[in-house]
Amino acid sequence: MTSIYFDHNATTALDSRVLEAMLPWMQTQQGNPTSRHFFGRTARNAIEHARAQVAEACGGYPSQVIFTASGTEANNFAIKGLANNQPATQILYSAIEHPCVSKPAIAMQARGWTSHSIEVSKTGQVDTNHLKTCLTTPTGLVSVMLVNNETGVIQNVAEIAEISRQAGALVHTDAVQGLGKMALNFTDLNVHAMSLSSHKIHGPQGAAALILDKRVDIAPLLHGGGQERGLRSGTENIAAIVGFGLACELAHAHLDQFTHHTNTLREQFESGLAAINITVFGSESDRVPNTSFFAVNGIEGETLVLALDRKGFAVASGSACSSDSTEPSHVLLAMGVNPDLARGAVRVSFGMHNTAQQVHDLLDTLKQEILRLKQLTSIAA
Amino acid sequence: MTSIYFDHNATTALDSRVLEAMLPWMQTQQGNPTSRHFFGRTARNAIEHARAQVAEACGGYPSQVIFTASGTEANNFAIKGLANNQPATQILYSAIEHPCVSKPAIAMQARGWTSHSIEVSKTGQVDTNHLKTCLTTPTGLVSVMLVNNETGVIQNVAEIAEISRQAGALVHTDAVQGLGKMALNFTDLNVHAMSLSSHKIHGPQGAAALILDKRVDIAPLLHGGGQERGLRSGTENIAAIVGFGLACELAHAHLDQFTHHTNTLREQFESGLAAINITVFGSESDRVPNTSFFAVNGIEGETLVLALDRKGFAVASGSACSSDSTEPSHVLLAMGVNPDLARGAVRVSFGMHNTAQQVHDLLDTLKQEILRLKQLTSIAA
Repeated sequence: MTSIYFDHNATTALDSRVLEAMLPWMQTQQGNPTSRHFFGRTARNAIEHARAQVAEACGGYPSQVIFTASGTEANNFAIKGLANNQPATQILYSAIEHPCVSKPAIAMQARGWTSHSIEVSKTGQVDTNHLKTCLTTPTGLVSVMLVNNETGVIQNVAEIAEISRQAGALVHTDAVQGLGKMALNFTDLNVHAMSLSSHKIHGPQGAAALILDKRVDIAPLLHGGGQERGLRSGTENIAAIVGFGLACELAHAHLDQFTHHTNTLREQFESGLAAINITVFGSESDRVPNTSFFAVNGIEGETLVLALDRKGFAVASGSACSSDSTEPSHVLLAMGVNPDLARGAVRVSFGMHNTAQQVHDLLDTLKQEILRLKQLTSIAA
Repeated sequence: MTSIYFDHNATTALDSRVLEAMLPWMQTQQGNPTSRHFFGRTARNAIEHARAQVAEACGGYPSQVIFTASGTEANNFAIKGLANNQPATQILYSAIEHPCVSKPAIAMQARGWTSHSIEVSKTGQVDTNHLKTCLTTPTGLVSVMLVNNETGVIQNVAEIAEISRQAGALVHTDAVQGLGKMALNFTDLNVHAMSLSSHKIHGPQGAAALILDKRVDIAPLLHGGGQERGLRSGTENIAAIVGFGLACELAHAHLDQFTHHTNTLREQFESGLAAINITVFGSESDRVPNTSFFAVNGIEGETLVLALDRKGFAVASGSACSSDSTEPSHVLLAMGVNPDLARGAVRVSFGMHNTAQQVHDLLDTLKQEILRLKQLTSIAA
């Protein structure tokens, strides 16, 4: 049985055109981009081409692009690097950040920083009043994600950045779930640093970037050979960077198509959910078009995910990065959702290759499984 | 004109069998290994298979393998992670370490550590008497590379580890240049942590590992989703890890063949150098079989590298990671080589696909270029 993939916020299949662009770097001798010889110079040129593609897709300049190996690395680099090069004060991060933002922020407590989370509303948006209250304490860094990975809710990062800048803080946004799913402009977002990742937009794993305002002082996370203007050492992953560049170009070029296609599928899906009285989280807010996060009262999300998996549908219970945990989603708890309901959370994230028929089949199977699981529960009770 | 590649210590071409093993992970939907569904479980199994392959190739246990994205990351993780979880004392590293070991060690000075380099002999080996002297100061961590990337000289890591352990220090070795070029056994080396990298052994870029004695306390460098037992967060680069696993298996299986082949080429090459009175650095010491590091009096290494490049031969002046620098090799300076001669250093590192004919041609061209450059110099003088 082939399984239908509805987990595009976790990772996406590599685009065949991207693989095509990567293969020459994997099929023949490539050079270390730092090397001066023919092979090295060729690799260097390819990396600079990809840097321009990434910059173009996110409204930045090539000189602002620092390649890393993952979104997690970009976020750790941003939080620790921006904090380490200034006196220890307070780091603020939203209560719904991915752990690769919140955990580095908390880790900075060992360096004399305090870290504090900013509350969000019931609709999943950062509470700017609470942000302002938090900012009455001297604050060196504020990090708020552009798009939440579980709900798909879009934050007003430009406004949050303006408020934070007025209080003298540097601002970082994790835009990993925004790239390719909404118009993205580094300058307009008004932040000092922004994280992007390749494998969420049909690019390869192993490439990501921190887009950085060059006027800002940042400490390296990886020390060594001095690649990426001394800010991120390590031999560049050429094939992955080349693939990331093209994936950015394709995502940028096909944004309207992606938006229309996934939004249509989501409307179909959420209409089906509404017909059986299932709550969708964050649906009152602006969301990226591909994400649907919901819960069925009385059924564990984990149980439903495994039941759907057996029927050939791959969906998620919360984010992949916390799938190992059986705790209810911290995002939903921050939104004030009852922990019992939050435990039932399931995320469906659509991609360009999903079809209306697949959504129809998913809805059918979902209804059957809910019925079956509720009957099991009532027998057990 | 196709160029002949003699820079295998910088990076190597991906083995076609390794690419073959990686492609299924790049051609179809793959899952995030943390996901519970079919795609996630399949990815998880592939990673655990690769973990066993890496462990087997380096004489470790699978549970000791922590995957990272690069050798630089593994070394930064080892140095900072082992230091951060103990009281600040002294870090010792050999004077010939790669900058991705020495710079993290120096960076720890900002956390209250002192860092100090251990001297090496004229033959490029760590001076154990100087190590013992250094260890009279309380020392938390000692890092000595197994094989130097420029000279190919092998260190007696087991002895260094024993001396360091007796003084109460943790011991790390950067074995990136040892893997695939010599017999490697984590247990026998007697260290607490060892770094390996994939792209030096015909594996893909984007995968590497820290092999860690699990009894040792280490702080994560990357915080987040809690992958790799909480020690290294970030979505696993499945294709790269699968490729790294197979590259380890192949390198391990073909070690004798590699040793015989590259040693034969090097003997041919160094006989040719000896005939024109060229100094080879570190040749009195045990070296890995593929590396030849030499200098021509009165000719800048950089000039010779570019001259050979124009004739279709890719060689290096020192390590790729410091190719951007015009300073003489820190490795040669540590060995007491005159800075003027050190500026002339050129590294040739052979691989399985190099042939005797290629070495013959390289020697011929090298002699012609030396003659030409010396004539230019004498005209200019």
